[in-house]
Amino acid sequence: MTQYIPPLADFEFLLFDVFNVDEEWISESIPVDRELANSVLHECGRVARDVMAPLSSTADREGASWDDGNVSAPQGFKEAFEVLTQGGWLGTAGNPEFGGQGMPKTLTTALEEMFWGSNTNLWLYAALTSGATYCIDAHASEELKARFLPAMYEGRWTGAMALTESHAGTDLGMLRTKAEHIEGNSYKITGTKIFITSGEHDLAENIVHLVLARIDGAPQGTRGISLFLVPKYLVDEQGAIGERNGFASGSIEHKMGIRGSATSVINYDDAQGYLIGEPNAGLRCMFTMMNYARVSVGVQGLGLGERAYQMAAAYAKERIQGRAPTGPVNAQGAADPIIEHPDVRRMLLTQRALTEGSRAFAVFTAVELDRTQRTDPEVSERSSRYVELLTPVVKAFISDRAMESTLLAQQCFGGHGYIVESGIEQVVRDARISQIYEGTNGIQAIDLLGRKVLQDGGQTLRSLIADLRQEALDPRYMTQVSDVLDLWSDVSEWLGSQARSDRSLAGSAAVDYLNLAGYALYAWLWARMSLFDDGTRGKSNLAQFYFDQLLPRAEYHAKVIKNGSNAVTAPDSDWF
Amino acid sequence: MTQYIPPLADFEFLLFDVFNVDEEWISESIPVDRELANSVLHECGRVARDVMAPLSSTADREGASWDDGNVSAPQGFKEAFEVLTQGGWLGTAGNPEFGGQGMPKTLTTALEEMFWGSNTNLWLYAALTSGATYCIDAHASEELKARFLPAMYEGRWTGAMALTESHAGTDLGMLRTKAEHIEGNSYKITGTKIFITSGEHDLAENIVHLVLARIDGAPQGTRGISLFLVPKYLVDEQGAIGERNGFASGSIEHKMGIRGSATSVINYDDAQGYLIGEPNAGLRCMFTMMNYARVSVGVQGLGLGERAYQMAAAYAKERIQGRAPTGPVNAQGAADPIIEHPDVRRMLLTQRALTEGSRAFAVFTAVELDRTQRTDPEVSERSSRYVELLTPVVKAFISDRAMESTLLAQQCFGGHGYIVESGIEQVVRDARISQIYEGTNGIQAIDLLGRKVLQDGGQTLRSLIADLRQEALDPRYMTQVSDVLDLWSDVSEWLGSQARSDRSLAGSAAVDYLNLAGYALYAWLWARMSLFDDGTRGKSNLAQFYFDQLLPRAEYHAKVIKNGSNAVTAPDSDWF
Repeated sequence: MTQYIPPLADFEFLLFDVFNVDEEWISESIPVDRELANSVLHECGRVARDVMAPLSSTADREGASWDDGNVSAPQGFKEAFEVLTQGGWLGTAGNPEFGGQGMPKTLTTALEEMFWGSNTNLWLYAALTSGATYCIDAHASEELKARFLPAMYEGRWTGAMALTESHAGTDLGMLRTKAEHIEGNSYKITGTKIFITSGEHDLAENIVHLVLARIDGAPQGTRGISLFLVPKYLVDEQGAIGERNGFASGSIEHKMGIRGSATSVINYDDAQGYLIGEPNAGLRCMFTMMNYARVSVGVQGLGLGERAYQMAAAYAKERIQGRAPTGPVNAQGAADPIIEHPDVRRMLLTQRALTEGSRAFAVFTAVELDRTQRTDPEVSERSSRYVELLTPVVKAFISDRAMESTLLAQQCFGGHGYIVESGIEQVVRDARISQIYEGTNGIQAIDLLGRKVLQDGGQTLRSLIADLRQEALDPRYMTQVSDVLDLWSDVSEWLGSQARSDRSLAGSAAVDYLNLAGYALYAWLWARMSLFDDGTRGKSNLAQFYFDQLLPRAEYHAKVIKNGSNAVTAPDSDWF
Repeated sequence: MTQYIPPLADFEFLLFDVFNVDEEWISESIPVDRELANSVLHECGRVARDVMAPLSSTADREGASWDDGNVSAPQGFKEAFEVLTQGGWLGTAGNPEFGGQGMPKTLTTALEEMFWGSNTNLWLYAALTSGATYCIDAHASEELKARFLPAMYEGRWTGAMALTESHAGTDLGMLRTKAEHIEGNSYKITGTKIFITSGEHDLAENIVHLVLARIDGAPQGTRGISLFLVPKYLVDEQGAIGERNGFASGSIEHKMGIRGSATSVINYDDAQGYLIGEPNAGLRCMFTMMNYARVSVGVQGLGLGERAYQMAAAYAKERIQGRAPTGPVNAQGAADPIIEHPDVRRMLLTQRALTEGSRAFAVFTAVELDRTQRTDPEVSERSSRYVELLTPVVKAFISDRAMESTLLAQQCFGGHGYIVESGIEQVVRDARISQIYEGTNGIQAIDLLGRKVLQDGGQTLRSLIADLRQEALDPRYMTQVSDVLDLWSDVSEWLGSQARSDRSLAGSAAVDYLNLAGYALYAWLWARMSLFDDGTRGKSNLAQFYFDQLLPRAEYHAKVIKNGSNAVTAPDSDWF
């Protein structure tokens, strides 16, 4: 397999040319400047390339393993994880009051991409920690924060989120795990959770579970769910590790991909837990974690899309087969590199236009995430609404495009791409999970259209589109961008007018609507990136490719939406 | 995993209602009638359901194994293969003169779908035999036919095709395997072939390889390639097995899917081979096998798409989660079955509209394949040209839609679909190969647009479209079908006018062109099926779904084509 190449030049282009984030860093007194950011990016890229990437394929082949409740990560992960903790890479975005480094999301998003792209299997042992610390920092008592956050930012302890039960996935209102009050904020937790990424493993001294459970006597459904911090080992007030808590891994799953990541069934049996936030307000607290995780899963797709592209491009330059249609370019050789074939170029350009579009979209969203912390309440409130609107699109559209990209990358390899040793089929299998977990992409689409657009009366969307129209873009693409923003607006208004009388419409239209939104946003992003091309980056040509070959999909999705829900609702369920 | 349900009612609908194939069987004196066909379909469905399907997931988990040149198929395959040979299922389409059953392709295509759908891994040990026997029957000497065909039709001996070498996949002109003349049609074959499906295994007494090689002194490139029959065990003139021939499996591949199928590296070392056809005319002979195999690979995708749909629909009826948007349908239960959610229905209907469209397309093509055998030379010649045109579309469009369908089916399972035990992730991995082998789908697209349309001056295509316009369709969809046939024609003419001056255009447009062709053909097929709906099959609603949600893709592909190749050709190869 080829070496992982950290896309440092593209990060620099996006952060400092396209989005000018360093100006915001200065004006907001964020303790990062361009020079520091570049050195952090560079160092992260080195770790991703030299420490993490080399362990990716062996991790897939070996897998995580389970023995009587003990879970072992694949070989080499312990040493690599030690590099991550020594480098402070788990606490980059953390609250400085408790030992975090307080870096802006615009920077940490780029770091995450490199960790996901170089070794998704390994990063899954770290990634849940960030979501858990966000949630603890936002909702837990000062005492719990002081007791748990420092070791988690250090990476000595990692995090896990325990939501799903076998009968309750999307529909968390059905969950049955129980919490029995002991005293103060202490509860005993009992129940079985499934699909717990890094819920048990051997890379950290302690594992901090955030568990959704129902306090005795709580209301049915989602209004009776509370959130608890449940550590693997109990921790005293000085932060010292004590005895083992009452839960264990019952088994780990055999999965299509991310096989080096241990996904546990966790059995909680009178496990000691601490309430986070108010009783019965657990879902709201958990959404702090979920929203972070959803953006991160989009970035996971992005990282794997980049990795897949790099592998496919390297193969296409090296593999010789057939002749270019415009005449031999490698006349002395037996054949031309397949990169000379227009269809191979089309596949590579599609991957690259999607992946670089996704990277721009991730940074764009990170800009808004950072602005939610602004002192100006008008700015922070507006950005919070934008982040709410954009989060499902980041999660679903980026991961869908990543799956498309990794499949295209595999296709570039021909038969060799189906063979394990090529490495590319693993990237496809690993990328697939990003469309499924943290809420399937169908759920993201329903969240976007139902909650973020229709329930909001379209206000946030109108505001976002108006703001997008203010920004400078490459004049060559102004009309097309304006048209697709009009199309997005029109379809949104039309759905708003129809969805009240047709209660199945929002559900049947949601996925197409999310796609329409994604292609419209990427059109804007490409027109913006093209404006800042200095002629050496190829951004203008990629923009042209995007407008020629990918943007027409927006009209297709709009047309499907306008055709309504009749054919979807007509058949009886028994007919299927 | 749910039981495999043979789609017998749909076969009957297509064969006898939509395409009236029994009338052609009678008028052409083909020794099959409706009653016999139904009993063959029924019996095949029983074998697929009861013998083959139960071995599918264990085969994936166990995989094929290699030990010092000996290859073992997974457990249970030997007994199941015995059922296939005892039932005569390997010789259904064979030449009756040598023991084949002479069934029409309209029938055997349906049989193949069930074998592929119930257990692709197992059927791969049988499927190559049909392609090999077609090729032998069409091109080998009478003596070779008599010596090899009867045992192959019985399934005592199986077939394999040995084309690819590690440096020569798509570009067979580069192959290096050598053939040294001994006497008569006997040659000694030396070289190494890769990706040889069922090139070595333990299910048959003998394995008959068809090997492409270069006779000493033959011209360079594709004009110097000859085809040889190279049996694993030498066979005397009475058909008795003799000593082991000079080749062996050097290893088997570790693959993303079809893990129960053994894909060998084969080392030929002075192996005895017999020339098939004329020297240096090997590629043409091999295309008899390849064209058969390409149609069959499309049908493989179809079978797996059907299997995936069945699994997803069963899960969606059983899994309860959330409430239907129009109010509870399972009010006494904790939640409604997810099939009540419009987005889940949308996914299931997409799968079904694509899969049933693909089945209709496979039968439509089989009708033309049978007509190539008509005594009326005008009919047989026209149908031969149609089959040439349609073959790459059958292979690529059906397998692409199958991949889309299996991924959607997996998505219906949520997180459970990523777990091996659900069974659905295997179907995704198995389906993926159908887009890659027998010529990647990119190669199919270039074959369609370059060779079958542009080189032909569009004549065959014009004739096919004119014929399609003659047939009775559901009047509700006449306009839309007519419009998309116009669009297909217009884009074809436009490409014909532009491709001479822009030599990269055919390559860059090919995949979109193949998709445009596919969606146009499926529009015609859905309007035709809808005409024959008796009100109980749901075909009219599926047709409506197709026209609302899937046909708009045709315009998208047309638009991309018309946007030209500039953005594809612009970047230097080094830029990638």
